[in-house]
Amino acid sequence: MATNLQLRSLIKKSGELELSLVDTPLPALGADEVLISMEASPLNPSDLGLLFGTADMRTAKASKDSAGRPVVTAQVPEGAAMRAMASRLDQSMPVGNEGAGVVIEAGSSPAAQALLGKKVAAIGGAMYSQLRAVPMAQCLVLPADASTTEGASCFVNPLTALGMVETMRREGHTALVHTAAASNLGQMLNRICMKDGVALVNIVRKPEQVALLKGMGAQYVCDSSAPTFLQDLTDALAATGATIAFDATGGGPLAGQILGCMEAALNRNAKEYSRYGSTTHKQVYLYGGLDTRPTEFNRNFGMAWGMGGWLLFPFLQKAGAATVQALKDRVAAELKTTFASHYSKEISLAEALDLDVIAVYNQRATGTKFLLNPSK
Amino acid sequence: MATNLQLRSLIKKSGELELSLVDTPLPALGADEVLISMEASPLNPSDLGLLFGTADMRTAKASKDSAGRPVVTAQVPEGAAMRAMASRLDQSMPVGNEGAGVVIEAGSSPAAQALLGKKVAAIGGAMYSQLRAVPMAQCLVLPADASTTEGASCFVNPLTALGMVETMRREGHTALVHTAAASNLGQMLNRICMKDGVALVNIVRKPEQVALLKGMGAQYVCDSSAPTFLQDLTDALAATGATIAFDATGGGPLAGQILGCMEAALNRNAKEYSRYGSTTHKQVYLYGGLDTRPTEFNRNFGMAWGMGGWLLFPFLQKAGAATVQALKDRVAAELKTTFASHYSKEISLAEALDLDVIAVYNQRATGTKFLLNPSK
Repeated sequence: MATNLQLRSLIKKSGELELSLVDTPLPALGADEVLISMEASPLNPSDLGLLFGTADMRTAKASKDSAGRPVVTAQVPEGAAMRAMASRLDQSMPVGNEGAGVVIEAGSSPAAQALLGKKVAAIGGAMYSQLRAVPMAQCLVLPADASTTEGASCFVNPLTALGMVETMRREGHTALVHTAAASNLGQMLNRICMKDGVALVNIVRKPEQVALLKGMGAQYVCDSSAPTFLQDLTDALAATGATIAFDATGGGPLAGQILGCMEAALNRNAKEYSRYGSTTHKQVYLYGGLDTRPTEFNRNFGMAWGMGGWLLFPFLQKAGAATVQALKDRVAAELKTTFASHYSKEISLAEALDLDVIAVYNQRATGTKFLLNPSK
Repeated sequence: MATNLQLRSLIKKSGELELSLVDTPLPALGADEVLISMEASPLNPSDLGLLFGTADMRTAKASKDSAGRPVVTAQVPEGAAMRAMASRLDQSMPVGNEGAGVVIEAGSSPAAQALLGKKVAAIGGAMYSQLRAVPMAQCLVLPADASTTEGASCFVNPLTALGMVETMRREGHTALVHTAAASNLGQMLNRICMKDGVALVNIVRKPEQVALLKGMGAQYVCDSSAPTFLQDLTDALAATGATIAFDATGGGPLAGQILGCMEAALNRNAKEYSRYGSTTHKQVYLYGGLDTRPTEFNRNFGMAWGMGGWLLFPFLQKAGAATVQALKDRVAAELKTTFASHYSKEISLAEALDLDVIAVYNQRATGTKFLLNPSK
């Protein structure tokens, strides 16, 4: 194994972000580990967060290292942006939450040996590497007829979407709201909800996204750019009874608007005045930060409400091993239908450090998700 | 029983708030009910919320009804303020969460009869009345040496303060933060925490409030008007390990600042970079709305956080009858010490509708809490 190139993100104490490809030695495999030749790894918003940190990518510059490999540098603004990076300064960090590839070496255990030559999906970070060693427990064997491209996004989006529905049920709600709903994740959630008969209120930002989701069978799609948005949302909430939302935008007024419309929907049928508002608990989980403005809300939704962060891994820990295995089995069984992902482009490790390519995938816009193929 | 004057708040569809004293008939007493001659009832912020609604009290005018009793009218601004009142329009609402007085009639049950002539505190609304009939279960018999003035605030503040400490314990935290901490409630919470050995971080708005609380033995008092506030708060949070807060202000940046400082305190001792921030859950409950601005925060506190409404009555329901009785017993036992309340003035029902008096008690400022004596 002469070479294992790995994409790294380093933020220096000086405030410089440096992205590079580093030749990384491979550790010896444990008995229950496998070595994967990586072929397909998505560039999810959570990956871009680690990749670019709080750097201002308008300052990005391209150069080459001594081996002629691409290097990108950019500046992290002083102040809050730099302080937010304090605990990762001067640490060269590998990137890539998940991906898929072929098992080319396996540890000594029979179970690991049985995976030799198999296509697997894996999770665990550092997936933007030519080769990646992981414990078997972090793998999912792909169905024989699935390609590694089809298996690249087996974990983050599918388990997040399933985790939202599972959280809804565990917290006693019967319908849910999702924002940035035209995203890959949003389309997946829509398919899960249609299949499971769960009412879903989709919130999008553009008329064409309404058409997209309606074309996919979504019943409730509200466009936050429409002048009738708050009325439309209240109608959809009254029709579905949704009292929990998962918000990918995080910033701005949206999370508070959702709570306010939930309260208005609940009060439509209220029989008497309650000075503290509806007694039904209304919950919004912020699981992303697509809108980088401060979160702002008027407290016009009574006292029975909650807002909070939601992350996949703490959810999986809380759900327990049996639930997680059931969710993984479902992902494998419905990989080409419910959990199908789409990518606008496949790029190599070197292309991932090309400024023009970065300018496209760092928009994080619906329909421009890229797939990284480290074997290219 | 010729007359039972009761203070009423009415918001009309026209947008006019009308406060008046209404002669109200008394219902026949049930077997387990008692009739209290009310002597002392506090004007808490929650009472003022019901009393004035969203009316603009700068527009208040005084007049008299046909019986020569005082009437106050004021305008509710159109738009959001009026919409927030939609479900109480044209309903004449009695006011006053709690109070104390003497039992002058009792239902047929022996337990009710045993209360005849006793001084009791009671909760249940409509306490700004000369006479008030309530079920015994909503009463607390005052110790023989306590006056009705001393027993006027047995429920809302004492049970709220005890409920905060109980919530802290139930949700797995070991220390807590409180804002508007120089309030009557805040001083009570400080006494409970000192007695129980629970670390409390007090947040106040003025240097003289720091001095007040320190003079009462408080160890951690942070002044949000100080230029070093965020640093002071982070230091106090690091020293105490407090990861839950109860915020009376609701609006503005304070709730988010508390979460941000909790995160900074937790990260001081972090050994490695965690891209999603500390995994320790940080919680802020908004239980009041002293600051009427929108709530606004930057999400600089990782993903393990929650914000939400907190109200006494849902807490008591969740806590269960045995816990509630234990809390009530503690209030009675420590009525003159831990749970002592102070009032700057005692007023009559008629004075409660005097514009000059309203102008003072509606400031809701620390140290200007009024006591209403309907028998005056």
